[in-house]
Amino acid sequence: MQLFSYFRSSASFRVRIALELKGLPYDYVPVHLVKNEQLKPPFTGVSPSRLVPILKDGEGLVTQSIAIIEYLDETHPEPPLMPAYPLGRARVRALSLDIACEIHPLNNLRVLRHLVHELKVSEDDKNRWYRHWVETGLETVERQLAGHPSTGRFCHGDTPTMADALLVPQIFNARRFECRLEHVPTVMKVFDACMEHPAFVRAQPSACPDADAP
Amino acid sequence: MQLFSYFRSSASFRVRIALELKGLPYDYVPVHLVKNEQLKPPFTGVSPSRLVPILKDGEGLVTQSIAIIEYLDETHPEPPLMPAYPLGRARVRALSLDIACEIHPLNNLRVLRHLVHELKVSEDDKNRWYRHWVETGLETVERQLAGHPSTGRFCHGDTPTMADALLVPQIFNARRFECRLEHVPTVMKVFDACMEHPAFVRAQPSACPDADAP
Repeated sequence: MQLFSYFRSSASFRVRIALELKGLPYDYVPVHLVKNEQLKPPFTGVSPSRLVPILKDGEGLVTQSIAIIEYLDETHPEPPLMPAYPLGRARVRALSLDIACEIHPLNNLRVLRHLVHELKVSEDDKNRWYRHWVETGLETVERQLAGHPSTGRFCHGDTPTMADALLVPQIFNARRFECRLEHVPTVMKVFDACMEHPAFVRAQPSACPDADAP
Repeated sequence: MQLFSYFRSSASFRVRIALELKGLPYDYVPVHLVKNEQLKPPFTGVSPSRLVPILKDGEGLVTQSIAIIEYLDETHPEPPLMPAYPLGRARVRALSLDIACEIHPLNNLRVLRHLVHELKVSEDDKNRWYRHWVETGLETVERQLAGHPSTGRFCHGDTPTMADALLVPQIFNARRFECRLEHVPTVMKVFDACMEHPAFVRAQPSACPDADAP
């Protein structure tokens, strides 16, 4: 398998975590987002989505991090990244989408660029925007984790699921932009548990072949 | 089953389509987003997510439209809203996420409000922002549908899938904000096919009990 990835892309980070949790070897193909390599050949020839990450599995191409993780879980079921029963799977998916739909899209590189270049938003206002969506979005996640009977050492139970693969990259981003995190203690307890797991450590941006690419 | 919905919420519209495609009866519980009812009791007592739609199925609560649709498909498999093979499911999920993660989050009510009230963006700039993300986002969807061997009468094959349940509400929004749509002919062909299907018609905003609620 080949993973088209950028070390700092949190969507790529999610998939790297899933691959490490599954113990699946893969070729890392770097795509430099800051240099806009995702918008130029040869990458545009790989997939019409022009987004990373992309997983190439034989002749099959899968885009969108959540679709990739679900695909990996279906094609390599052990260890499972989804609970065995429908309401459990629904909870893991909903937590994942709380991050993938409510937080991350507002803060990715192309949106921040648009705010600055098109809407002429100041650097300060851009940073406030970033923190606002991270802090309020994580508060929603906190409310769903804290005191819920299914929350365990990880977001759902005592083994990592897709939700943890979404949560950890979001916390990395939050720290990079100096967001407030004291108001989400359950989220941070789960984050700390994840970072004691070698799969999350091996998948982190600083461990990528293109880390700190100029 | 109960669906907490707002007629104009496109995430609620997605779930209403899925329920209609499955032929499942449900109680419609209106939550008026413009009046911020999602942030007040009794709704805040229903779910800590404070977002619509929410599906209540017996004692089970499911949030996030994509998680709800997947849950409905797992618990009521006929007719299926997902292809039978992993790469097909991955494609349907990726198309759905191209809308749910790359387009819709930038244009929902709370984000538009934030642009106007916090960033003091003008009405014109807000509308330009809206159209930019819809038009470029749908272009990405178009590139993935046009000429793909799995694209049929609908996004994936000749029967509706989750991807169609995501696409149709996005086109309703695009029209409401007068976005350009000539550049996405395949998307519009699929949209037209959907609107010939009674499930999509029955689920549309104007058919909701709270349509045009003051």
